[in-house]
Amino acid sequence: MRTQVCIIGGGPAGLLLGQLCHRAGIDAIVLERRSREHVLSRIRAGVLEQGLLRLLDEAGVPTRMDRLGYPHDGTVMSFAEGEVRIDFKAHTGTSVMVYGQTEVTRDLYDARDACGAPTLHEVDEVEIVNAGFDDARGCTVRFTHEGTRKQIACDYIAGCDGFHGPSRHAIPADKRREFERVYPFGWLGILSETPPVHHELIYANSERGFALCSMRNERLSRYYVQCPMTDRVEDWSDEMFWDELRRRIPSRHADALETGPSIEKSIAPLRSFVCEPMQYGRLFLAGDAAHIVPPTGAKGLNTAASDVHYLFQGLKARYQHGDAAALHAYSETALKRVWKTQRFSWWMTKLLHQFPDTDDYERRLQVAEIEHLATIPEAQATLAINYVGLPY
Amino acid sequence: MRTQVCIIGGGPAGLLLGQLCHRAGIDAIVLERRSREHVLSRIRAGVLEQGLLRLLDEAGVPTRMDRLGYPHDGTVMSFAEGEVRIDFKAHTGTSVMVYGQTEVTRDLYDARDACGAPTLHEVDEVEIVNAGFDDARGCTVRFTHEGTRKQIACDYIAGCDGFHGPSRHAIPADKRREFERVYPFGWLGILSETPPVHHELIYANSERGFALCSMRNERLSRYYVQCPMTDRVEDWSDEMFWDELRRRIPSRHADALETGPSIEKSIAPLRSFVCEPMQYGRLFLAGDAAHIVPPTGAKGLNTAASDVHYLFQGLKARYQHGDAAALHAYSETALKRVWKTQRFSWWMTKLLHQFPDTDDYERRLQVAEIEHLATIPEAQATLAINYVGLPY
Repeated sequence: MRTQVCIIGGGPAGLLLGQLCHRAGIDAIVLERRSREHVLSRIRAGVLEQGLLRLLDEAGVPTRMDRLGYPHDGTVMSFAEGEVRIDFKAHTGTSVMVYGQTEVTRDLYDARDACGAPTLHEVDEVEIVNAGFDDARGCTVRFTHEGTRKQIACDYIAGCDGFHGPSRHAIPADKRREFERVYPFGWLGILSETPPVHHELIYANSERGFALCSMRNERLSRYYVQCPMTDRVEDWSDEMFWDELRRRIPSRHADALETGPSIEKSIAPLRSFVCEPMQYGRLFLAGDAAHIVPPTGAKGLNTAASDVHYLFQGLKARYQHGDAAALHAYSETALKRVWKTQRFSWWMTKLLHQFPDTDDYERRLQVAEIEHLATIPEAQATLAINYVGLPY
Repeated sequence: MRTQVCIIGGGPAGLLLGQLCHRAGIDAIVLERRSREHVLSRIRAGVLEQGLLRLLDEAGVPTRMDRLGYPHDGTVMSFAEGEVRIDFKAHTGTSVMVYGQTEVTRDLYDARDACGAPTLHEVDEVEIVNAGFDDARGCTVRFTHEGTRKQIACDYIAGCDGFHGPSRHAIPADKRREFERVYPFGWLGILSETPPVHHELIYANSERGFALCSMRNERLSRYYVQCPMTDRVEDWSDEMFWDELRRRIPSRHADALETGPSIEKSIAPLRSFVCEPMQYGRLFLAGDAAHIVPPTGAKGLNTAASDVHYLFQGLKARYQHGDAAALHAYSETALKRVWKTQRFSWWMTKLLHQFPDTDDYERRLQVAEIEHLATIPEAQATLAINYVGLPY
């Protein structure tokens, strides 16, 4: 097989890049390790920036957002019984869209089906050969599919295969530098078929730890509480979860909380991670393959989307005008925005969580930061600008 | 002797409170450990917020600012060869005043002389007796002056005697809580009779460490470089200082720098410190006696001034209307603003200095924070609002 761009990873980043390429007349194949059903069963983020919505539009992907999406013009940050609303609309003129990543992925698969764009599922033992630009033979992706060893020769490889995928490791260890921060807690999350406690998200700073009241739709809620990473899901009955959540949000919300059985429950670790550079010769990393943020601030999928944008611009200039400058500058361009979302996600995480290892001085600083945010509209505007998404 | 308010400490905070009391018909005596000459020889901060200027005005203190002060409408933050100007005027409608703390102190002494308000100098072995409200005998300050043990009976005591003064320690250890952060570096500062390199301050983030280009007037410059606390002043020749400063500021400024012999050279440690509460019965702490900030952001004297404002409001309500509520709430009221200036000073320090103990991830975050500041006007506005001084 031969293609122009071989995309490793059939999550939203890879699929979106595939559709953008398809629409621009660039030949691309998507390889995905899991089955389509598995990919669509993963529960992930659900807050989309306008930049991602514009990319879906640019890729000609029909979505079901007009029916299933919820534009949010603001969010609530609570601390003990106090709260401040961050008004996205007032500060930025725009909003975010609450629409599950799973739904985005489904829309992308449907769009690929409609145009016959190739996606290979259950692809295993992926091997990247000759990614270096200096290799005149071009590069090749080898893999096992349907029991057979296959290969795709291509001009470029897009590594959209997540934190654990093989793409990043195809950059020689002495050619990349990794930056990492692991947080001393996790998020225990549940999904429940109950109406959301509030029509906007509530990010709660409590002395007992962080909590988040999120949602998928009017009858499907997503709630999280910060927990030690030593906790196991089995330790948390639904009742314990609801009790703990109630203690961490202002009482007027706790009193209004409708509870029910969880239909999903899991504990996720929090990590900050960046790989520099995000490219090596003909190989380009995008999304979780290159960087991870803690979920506070909802920047994971959205930053993957900005990578896809920069990478697609580079590929388009290369194929439509023979100009590879943007492609060569991809890592540098993408990293500028990546580090800003790292900063924001780190700041939101630091603002809202209880860190077991901080001293009393830092705890007071956290309270002061929240009071500062609550009283300075310009600080709220800065948060809003970052939350709705910095321009590409 | 007997007075209504005994003010311990004849630095700017104590003198200002004394003048405000005098003007309001509240009887006050200021006790100072050092000679007047010594107090006036100390070189301290030189950036004043409007709030402090208004207080001087309210106290009826004639100043020489129209002749010797320099209103600054903005400041420059540089990083490597890049720089961003923070426009105070555009973002807040106001400015700060560059005017030495020594000059403020001189103006205050002159005002005290003019009205005959009492200040005792070279007061030693100060002892605070019965500060607790529950003691019906009222409180007393005992001290040694001109070789004799004396005492002043009073209604209230204002502890304006700095970090090392006795006032804070008069609060029983089990009734106060101290919050502290010591930074792993100091500021090596020089004063030189040379024109300032730039008409506004330059706060420089450099890979070699922080630098600050400040000034007293058109022929008197104040410069600083971050240095290890293990350095001694004797290790730094003037030439070494100028060379190091040049390496830390953008080259267009380095090239324009006029150097000359230093007329003062010293190394100051950086510390964040807060004592809670700031009052104990009849004793009230103000300024450095209660809290210290690192000098980045110029909040030391300005925060002392806001304490003085709150304390004076409390005393005025008590003596003019017999209402002690504001006095009782003094600590709570003052601490809200104190912690915001702590936050700001900590943030500015963290943004601009090289911390020997931070990891690579945090260094990248620092660069991202600077880029964020350079590109987001609302972030610049937030900085400006804090720099010119939060409202009292």
